[in-house]
Amino acid sequence: MKNTITICECFARDGLQHEKLFVPTGAKVSLIDRFTDIGFRRIEATSYSNPDKVPAFRDASDVLSGIRRGAGVHYKATCANLRSVTRALADLDAGYGATELSLLVSASESHSLRNLRADRATQWRNVAEMAKAAAGRFRLVGVISVAFGCPFEGRIDMTRVVEDAARFADIGAELLTVGDTTGFATPNLVRRLFTRLRAEVPQIVPVGHFHDTRGLGLANCMAAIESGCRLLDSAMGGVGGHPAQIQYGGGITGNVATEDLANMLEEEGLSTGLDLDALIEASRVSEQILGRELESRVARSGFGLAGLGRHV
Amino acid sequence: MKNTITICECFARDGLQHEKLFVPTGAKVSLIDRFTDIGFRRIEATSYSNPDKVPAFRDASDVLSGIRRGAGVHYKATCANLRSVTRALADLDAGYGATELSLLVSASESHSLRNLRADRATQWRNVAEMAKAAAGRFRLVGVISVAFGCPFEGRIDMTRVVEDAARFADIGAELLTVGDTTGFATPNLVRRLFTRLRAEVPQIVPVGHFHDTRGLGLANCMAAIESGCRLLDSAMGGVGGHPAQIQYGGGITGNVATEDLANMLEEEGLSTGLDLDALIEASRVSEQILGRELESRVARSGFGLAGLGRHV
Repeated sequence: MKNTITICECFARDGLQHEKLFVPTGAKVSLIDRFTDIGFRRIEATSYSNPDKVPAFRDASDVLSGIRRGAGVHYKATCANLRSVTRALADLDAGYGATELSLLVSASESHSLRNLRADRATQWRNVAEMAKAAAGRFRLVGVISVAFGCPFEGRIDMTRVVEDAARFADIGAELLTVGDTTGFATPNLVRRLFTRLRAEVPQIVPVGHFHDTRGLGLANCMAAIESGCRLLDSAMGGVGGHPAQIQYGGGITGNVATEDLANMLEEEGLSTGLDLDALIEASRVSEQILGRELESRVARSGFGLAGLGRHV
Repeated sequence: MKNTITICECFARDGLQHEKLFVPTGAKVSLIDRFTDIGFRRIEATSYSNPDKVPAFRDASDVLSGIRRGAGVHYKATCANLRSVTRALADLDAGYGATELSLLVSASESHSLRNLRADRATQWRNVAEMAKAAAGRFRLVGVISVAFGCPFEGRIDMTRVVEDAARFADIGAELLTVGDTTGFATPNLVRRLFTRLRAEVPQIVPVGHFHDTRGLGLANCMAAIESGCRLLDSAMGGVGGHPAQIQYGGGITGNVATEDLANMLEEEGLSTGLDLDALIEASRVSEQILGRELESRVARSGFGLAGLGRHV
């Protein structure tokens, strides 16, 4: 049996978060349905952000009520505060909830203040309340942003990240997304952190979430896999960005491109469970939705030897 | 003492080979001088191609006579046939020769016929003659193209590549460039091949030459380093391409971007010996020369934690 890697497709949330264009609800729903059909087992569907602050997700409930559900597929929604968990619970009660919620903390104080408008101690209290409210209703995903480096503070003490992972486990998170929000991770840093997490917090399942800010996205995914990680995040076309990075100096900050990640995994003899032909079609549709050529290399060059013949 | 990686800067040859624009000789010379000042120990300067077929390098001798020479720095010229070695010898006799010549073979028959217009057996006879003519006058670099996969034939038998490496050693090549010409290498393939080369052909020094066709350029560089490789090729802005790939289906086929490679290495605690501030300036100049934004991510996003504060 081939070693299976579970990719969470993040286009519809992390990918769209900072797009200027509002993607119509119908387009989001049909794209997420396409992701389900391709074989993704985890799909980041939307965010219960404040619609006044993040209008991209003002249709969160409509998206979740509109999508088809694949058997055993998790649909994730991002929650930044208790109010968003309340909305998630209301949607669940109405019959169309997310199945996973992600709860966010930042590894640095500066990023926490800017991104979550709360210091770390306050945000940890928020997150504990959110987890309590959501307990038993959703699979919970703890997210640690800027886990490998902060654009404001530089290096992050790895022990702090490991301690945050343990806190997430303590409040009931089953998964832990280790977020390289602005692309400071390197393969050796990734190996060290994922090896420590496995040894010191074995009760939580780590997810590698890398941005390709400096071209290291796939190298970091590979390093995570070599350290036992089996869940990775990526977004079609490598879309996505982060305001902290934009404040700091601009640059390409997108997620790892799903097309390129799937190609690498299949080439390496790992199984993604994805329909690669349908993936290429979704890549085209994603570019049509945003009206521009996106960042995936495989979308331009075609798959490698394992998928030879599949050319966009 | 930090582990040192020697980057060969390939912008002026592999980078420019398929550019439509002819870069004026003066711009090439001043860019190569800039590369020397940045601290590169190996610079691919030009190609003794047939000027009628590859007009980009019709000024090969003028470039080599125009550049300043750094102490201990190697300036490489590409040779496809005996005629080009004759030209290289004439320039050397005139006092402005290259110090390294690269001699090319392809790992597949189809690519050899299309790219070198000779089958492998014929090209090996050519290369042996070329090496004989050049012996004692230049450092010789054997180059094996499409070493990890061929756009026409698919997978390449790794044993053939190892045998080619031994043949290059036999005819006097000190270095061996393992070329992933159209981006089919993956980290595990790279580890396997470089480990075999080290064990089976220890008399030749391997050089990793990766193209970022499918986003795996840096991951493959890292895999080569982990397998003991200490020399890598890259090009400013990730420029470069390959007609075979273009015939086969287009796509982004550029070299690994030097800016991104240097960032990764410095971040990983390896030494490049390069002046990173001057590297950023050269990145800007390279974009000005070609009149467009190139493919380096670091050129957009700035260096990571080791070089924090250096932002383009």
